[in-house]
Amino acid sequence: MKLFWTPASPFTRKVVVTARELGLWERIEVVPTVWPLDWGYATVEFTKGLAEANPVARIPTLVTDDGVALGDSTLICQHLNEVAPSSSIIPEGEAKAHMWSLYAVADGLLEAQIAMRAEMLRPGSIRSEGFLNKQRDRITRCFDHIEAHSDELDGPLDLAQITVGIACGYQDWREWLDDFRPGHGRLSVWYDEFAKRPAMRDTEPKETPAA
Amino acid sequence: MKLFWTPASPFTRKVVVTARELGLWERIEVVPTVWPLDWGYATVEFTKGLAEANPVARIPTLVTDDGVALGDSTLICQHLNEVAPSSSIIPEGEAKAHMWSLYAVADGLLEAQIAMRAEMLRPGSIRSEGFLNKQRDRITRCFDHIEAHSDELDGPLDLAQITVGIACGYQDWREWLDDFRPGHGRLSVWYDEFAKRPAMRDTEPKETPAA
Repeated sequence: MKLFWTPASPFTRKVVVTARELGLWERIEVVPTVWPLDWGYATVEFTKGLAEANPVARIPTLVTDDGVALGDSTLICQHLNEVAPSSSIIPEGEAKAHMWSLYAVADGLLEAQIAMRAEMLRPGSIRSEGFLNKQRDRITRCFDHIEAHSDELDGPLDLAQITVGIACGYQDWREWLDDFRPGHGRLSVWYDEFAKRPAMRDTEPKETPAA
Repeated sequence: MKLFWTPASPFTRKVVVTARELGLWERIEVVPTVWPLDWGYATVEFTKGLAEANPVARIPTLVTDDGVALGDSTLICQHLNEVAPSSSIIPEGEAKAHMWSLYAVADGLLEAQIAMRAEMLRPGSIRSEGFLNKQRDRITRCFDHIEAHSDELDGPLDLAQITVGIACGYQDWREWLDDFRPGHGRLSVWYDEFAKRPAMRDTEPKETPAA
């Protein structure tokens, strides 16, 4: 499999942590991508092969062993879970809907973080403080919800936990995002432990390297 | 089940068409939502119950028969496909990855359309022509890709077809989006037929009614 990647993208990190936890990492060839800082408001020059594989031209994009491109992190994680030889991060039965419910909240939180990043990169004259505040409010509501559902983070490893952990990690990384810990005590304690997993420690976010 | 809904949202239409095609529509209670026109760059007053069910505060949000909220249209469609008594719009086996591959392109196309809508609603002083052009380029690349893969639209009904059809419908509806037909002859012929399905005819996009 081939993964279009950068260490700055939390959606890509979700795929990488999933692949590592499922024991699939050795089967994935990483293709580093480069993103000029105007990526949010311009059609940039894409890393070779990306737009050809996935016309949305976004990462993560995974090309499967059969040469099929998947351009959505949720679908990629589901695919990896299916090809994993034994372990699973998507529960069956009644637990499944609960896992996806919490996952969708954590994923919406990631979207808000990345939407803020794109807005911060705009020239000041076309940057919307209202837009940034809308995303900040969304992030706060999502962390409040996760704190209220923090007992769901205690079961066997699943994709919701991975996504929550990555949202916490991104919130810590970007200095223009508030500390998520105040008012979210149980989540903070959980994240302190979760961040120690090798798959998390080895994938801490970094700026996209220059070309 | 309960669905937070508006007729203007293509992601919500995807869920509605899916539910109709799977014979589940009668089991869903529709909760109309209202969206002030500054929804893209302000925290608006949400329709009662929406943010409480899903802190991302976005539609579609489905509350399952078990009271679990799902706030992502892909996950909602997967859930509906699982609870459907007999039919399925997600193939098994080798066809599955191909279906999700095309689906992700069509879904990325919907995202670009909605990103443009949100940008168009911004006051002119903070609207980015570069951002609009970036999304227009993405839309063109996605339609080109779908045209090149139009043979995949000919099999039994699946979620990729539904999403492609809705992308075409949205492109037709908004006067600031270009006609998708030039250069995409096979897709145009396919869409003419697909748009006649009752589930498509009965769900044509309309502006969100005022409160």
